[in-house]
Amino acid sequence: MSVAPAAVLDAAARRGWSLAVAESLTGGLVTATLVDVPGASRVLRGGVVAYATELKASVLGVDAALLAARGAVDPEVAVAMATGVRQRLAADVGLATTGVAGPDPQDGHAPGTVHVAVVTPEGDHVRSLHLPGDRRDVRTAACAAVLGLAAEVLGR
Amino acid sequence: MSVAPAAVLDAAARRGWSLAVAESLTGGLVTATLVDVPGASRVLRGGVVAYATELKASVLGVDAALLAARGAVDPEVAVAMATGVRQRLAADVGLATTGVAGPDPQDGHAPGTVHVAVVTPEGDHVRSLHLPGDRRDVRTAACAAVLGLAAEVLGR
Repeated sequence: MSVAPAAVLDAAARRGWSLAVAESLTGGLVTATLVDVPGASRVLRGGVVAYATELKASVLGVDAALLAARGAVDPEVAVAMATGVRQRLAADVGLATTGVAGPDPQDGHAPGTVHVAVVTPEGDHVRSLHLPGDRRDVRTAACAAVLGLAAEVLGR
Repeated sequence: MSVAPAAVLDAAARRGWSLAVAESLTGGLVTATLVDVPGASRVLRGGVVAYATELKASVLGVDAALLAARGAVDPEVAVAMATGVRQRLAADVGLATTGVAGPDPQDGHAPGTVHVAVVTPEGDHVRSLHLPGDRRDVRTAACAAVLGLAAEVLGR
């Protein structure tokens, strides 16, 4: 992984900000990677794995009309997931992943199509990627991508 | 890991039951382990990582008075987390983990003190363990313990 999860936690701690994570294709991997750092509880509040699409609306508060119009694999949905988990878990910063791990396409999107978002009190940030490899490669790279975006945004 | 996560998903599928996971010390590892199985989405709805104690009440609906009286590391809290995630994520079966990964004790409980619960439409099941090893060993063993309990309960 290119960005150490400890760097994300340290950057958040320096800002005095707490974190929460909303995951779809990464399925808990981002949260588990952060929890693995000793002292993570100072910064990390928790996470939601909204694997079934309707949970993105019912648990994270993503607009059901947006999900119906765009499907779950969409940059605006990634931002709405990050915004939702930040609100629901009372955190300062929300991280989110959505995309297609494969091997099959989803809603017309090829495997490896991934959107990651970071929402802070200062703004919304989203990055869209086409990641190579199998199901596990895509998940690992998606996890690295959201941590990399968070390190950039929080480290400013 | 002693029980393959695919065995848990297969056992749930045979019963026609969906799954949801509530995690504390395992921090997303149980959900990520299940998501890693191809076709997991047929059974797995998602999960909640309630790492901060108050999220166990606000997000999972665990009785705040129970948390105040017992703390988060308690078998009854494990059952309440499994019950809560099952309700909040509209799943048939809830799995939950709570405990102390270490290295420091929490609320007077030694590192390695772990409670795992599985709640199904047919009943509540909880198992309390004292697991050896460091922070990562305890998490890995706690993940294996809840999957093992789920395989036993669902495989009946």
